[in-house]
Amino acid sequence: MSETASTRPPLSPTPRSSLTRSKERGRTDRADLDAVLDAGPICHLGVVLNGTPVVIPTIYGRDGDTLYLHGSTGSGNLRAAMTGDVSVSVTHVDGIVYARSAMHFSMNYRSAVIHARPIELTDPAERLHALHVIVEHAAPGAWDAVRSPNKKEMAATLVLALDLTEASVKMRTGGPRDEPDDIAAGGVWAGVLPMRQVFDAPIPADDLDPGIEIPAHVLNRCTAAPSALQPL
Amino acid sequence: MSETASTRPPLSPTPRSSLTRSKERGRTDRADLDAVLDAGPICHLGVVLNGTPVVIPTIYGRDGDTLYLHGSTGSGNLRAAMTGDVSVSVTHVDGIVYARSAMHFSMNYRSAVIHARPIELTDPAERLHALHVIVEHAAPGAWDAVRSPNKKEMAATLVLALDLTEASVKMRTGGPRDEPDDIAAGGVWAGVLPMRQVFDAPIPADDLDPGIEIPAHVLNRCTAAPSALQPL
Repeated sequence: MSETASTRPPLSPTPRSSLTRSKERGRTDRADLDAVLDAGPICHLGVVLNGTPVVIPTIYGRDGDTLYLHGSTGSGNLRAAMTGDVSVSVTHVDGIVYARSAMHFSMNYRSAVIHARPIELTDPAERLHALHVIVEHAAPGAWDAVRSPNKKEMAATLVLALDLTEASVKMRTGGPRDEPDDIAAGGVWAGVLPMRQVFDAPIPADDLDPGIEIPAHVLNRCTAAPSALQPL
Repeated sequence: MSETASTRPPLSPTPRSSLTRSKERGRTDRADLDAVLDAGPICHLGVVLNGTPVVIPTIYGRDGDTLYLHGSTGSGNLRAAMTGDVSVSVTHVDGIVYARSAMHFSMNYRSAVIHARPIELTDPAERLHALHVIVEHAAPGAWDAVRSPNKKEMAATLVLALDLTEASVKMRTGGPRDEPDDIAAGGVWAGVLPMRQVFDAPIPADDLDPGIEIPAHVLNRCTAAPSALQPL
């Protein structure tokens, strides 16, 4: 997504976006926020509905310092998102940290927490751009290969934009931070069990014309061993 | 985790836990909720802090119809969680659904959204049990292998319990649901790109005595190809 890094200010914490715990894990570079958001695939959107919080998973896309969300015009949660501030969180778990004591078990992760007041997009070109960004976030290279939304589909879709000004980014990497006494005592394995998300071999739709090959923009995402692709 | 399936009622929807969109994706069996929660590793906790929602990633554990959360006694977000209702969401993305039209792009997923009023645990035995459940959720088999929390560590830890009565479970599986016209038009690949989380070869801590072998409860979780384990 296009942006001019040199003109973008660092993430400036407000009281609610300031870290109060494990501050050494904080990042203030916008590039870190971008990287966490771009690693997708979903975010968790928190809204206040009838006085209580509701957290729902949803897909999104980012273009520069704007985050886009979309959904049905009938979605109560998205409607609620337009009436006040929301929080959007994106988290990637990179590993389980095994320590010598229960207290120091942890996870390695990259996370972003955003605070914003969403606005509903009404301009047709802006709305189409946002949907383009959302689809390309979930499925890079797909937008140009498929049918664009028609008038009826656009009318049924609510598109929201959030400004990425108020956000915090937190990361943990590396091994356990054990107590010196526990390290000296020995006898307990400690380390990290790395985790990552992989894509397996694509599964063609039941109603797909068998003459249509898997396009490169899908096939190139597969992280599974090449042999796993053979059955296709 | 122990439970008596026969005595457990199905998930009974309240207004805020009732699905308003894509109701065909809903599940009301408690076993489905349990399965989504037990697949871990993290949840997203939504609280209302100073009038606006905050969504943060955190680890958790489940025992029967109780969800446990923990954190530092200094955590403002956990403190906020004790003053009102919260929402906890656990989501697993199983695949990207490629459709013939932008409108029908989707994801396959399993998600649970819980609404509850957390209570702080104060009984020492209950608190220890909750931490046991949380550690075993993140690292099955680890609790008995490591040092238990001491008094000082317990005093610094806030432990919350949430009742799993009010929850909704939603799942999407299978291929794209395309418009008949788009299927008839042909020419566009459609299907699912499956996703899953894998564990790679464990990385021993820098300060680990090289004589300590990786325990079975860690090694058995690895989903990476056996060859990936060789370098150790």
